[in-house]
Amino acid sequence: MARTLRLAVLQAAFGDDMTANIATVEKLTREAAKDGAQVILPPELFQGPYFCKTEDTVHFQTAYPWKDHPVVTALAPLAKELGVVLPLSIFERDGQEYYNSLVTVDADGEILGLYRKSHIPDGPGYEEKFYFRPGDTGFKVWDTKVGRIGVGICWDQWFPEAARAMMLMGAEVLFYPTAIGSEPENPSLDTQSRWRRAMTGHAVSNVVPVAAANRIGDEDGQIFYGSSFIVDDGGDFIADMARDAEGFAAATVDLDEVDEHRASWGFFRDRRPELYGRLTGGR
Amino acid sequence: MARTLRLAVLQAAFGDDMTANIATVEKLTREAAKDGAQVILPPELFQGPYFCKTEDTVHFQTAYPWKDHPVVTALAPLAKELGVVLPLSIFERDGQEYYNSLVTVDADGEILGLYRKSHIPDGPGYEEKFYFRPGDTGFKVWDTKVGRIGVGICWDQWFPEAARAMMLMGAEVLFYPTAIGSEPENPSLDTQSRWRRAMTGHAVSNVVPVAAANRIGDEDGQIFYGSSFIVDDGGDFIADMARDAEGFAAATVDLDEVDEHRASWGFFRDRRPELYGRLTGGR
Repeated sequence: MARTLRLAVLQAAFGDDMTANIATVEKLTREAAKDGAQVILPPELFQGPYFCKTEDTVHFQTAYPWKDHPVVTALAPLAKELGVVLPLSIFERDGQEYYNSLVTVDADGEILGLYRKSHIPDGPGYEEKFYFRPGDTGFKVWDTKVGRIGVGICWDQWFPEAARAMMLMGAEVLFYPTAIGSEPENPSLDTQSRWRRAMTGHAVSNVVPVAAANRIGDEDGQIFYGSSFIVDDGGDFIADMARDAEGFAAATVDLDEVDEHRASWGFFRDRRPELYGRLTGGR
Repeated sequence: MARTLRLAVLQAAFGDDMTANIATVEKLTREAAKDGAQVILPPELFQGPYFCKTEDTVHFQTAYPWKDHPVVTALAPLAKELGVVLPLSIFERDGQEYYNSLVTVDADGEILGLYRKSHIPDGPGYEEKFYFRPGDTGFKVWDTKVGRIGVGICWDQWFPEAARAMMLMGAEVLFYPTAIGSEPENPSLDTQSRWRRAMTGHAVSNVVPVAAANRIGDEDGQIFYGSSFIVDDGGDFIADMARDAEGFAAATVDLDEVDEHRASWGFFRDRRPELYGRLTGGR
């Protein structure tokens, strides 16, 4: 029997009320589960507005220890109820440190662990270095009941190293929760196609399906462009959302077929790790 | 004054007569130079047919020591005459070893050095592991009179590590001579879009223009699909050839503008080499 997996990406706008935001994700998760989705990806930091637009200490109050985070305590039971895997993006506090983190909940409600965003952006409208300490967990893959998945967080999606590392750890699908939109200081720059091309590149170079979920909405003039998608292991779009639609998109992949494709291409046979020293800081 | 660079990719069919093949490249190089091109990229192994379709010892006779290779001795003077940089793909013999190699000739005719293809494919129609020892030079960038360029060879183009390594060495443009076409044992598989997507991914993830030159023609049923292209540092096509056209395509990039874009994106600021140990064989 084919080892198929149905994936879904969620897309919505989020506001100041964390409870309402969680309810939005719950509603869409139920819809996607009804459609047969087994792994359901909400956007990055759906707990609130994308607060990194500015540098304001008030937002530190919305960070919680990861196991007690309201997003986790509310949605882990939902994962169990629906029998779906949920990679949940959260703003995490650990003692005096704050991280942009992700908790993966398995289809039986078990919390599989924590990943902390490795690559932290910084620039007008995306002032993440003010809030988040760079992640110290290293890249993570999660052995869920429906397959081994790798999850990066937003900015991680631009780094081929992150995708490759998760693949070398055995990931069968890559997921990227995201919050990306317009550039306040450069209104003519639309990054949507670059955003898609970078991850499509990971799909092709690693022969792996890639799913990305982005928010929508106008947050004080910063317009998030949605465009959530899933590409197959050749980079073809198999789910594709508009820039402003709320809802979910789902697609089914055959993990055994992808595995055969990957072996057939031979990229992992032909890698030359002994020549890659530059990538880890060597010369 | 803007530090602009005009690039060209050459596209043609090649047959058994090495002298005729060199003449074809010379003709197209002159045309591209007349159009203002400063770096002109011919396809991979244009010295003859793509002989790796089969495993046949007769082809070893077409390898030469790199400085004495007929392609190099014929075209280095042309580079000088026209004042153009030529990255030249050759079948190299070094004592008992054979390599899929590249010699870069500067715009004054100086031979800058040798790169040996790091990643060697193998499969139906592309039996390169029979002929070529995996390259031992490591990745190379070339300080030419018109900018620092990185050149990979064909299969190298599928590996994000190769692109990243050349970027970390200061490459300002990436070039990939190629020989790719139909799959003899899988006629329904058309790799053209994957081929472009992988390199477009490198362009976006490294904020760098990428140029690829491929051959055309039907070689005993193996159809090479041309489609040579240049993308800018955001992955937009700025030169784009058909699947069957002979000729060249050229585009101009502003290296200072690209440099500013790259710094602005911050990918090289935010890399985490200490987390990339997996890529070099660590755990």
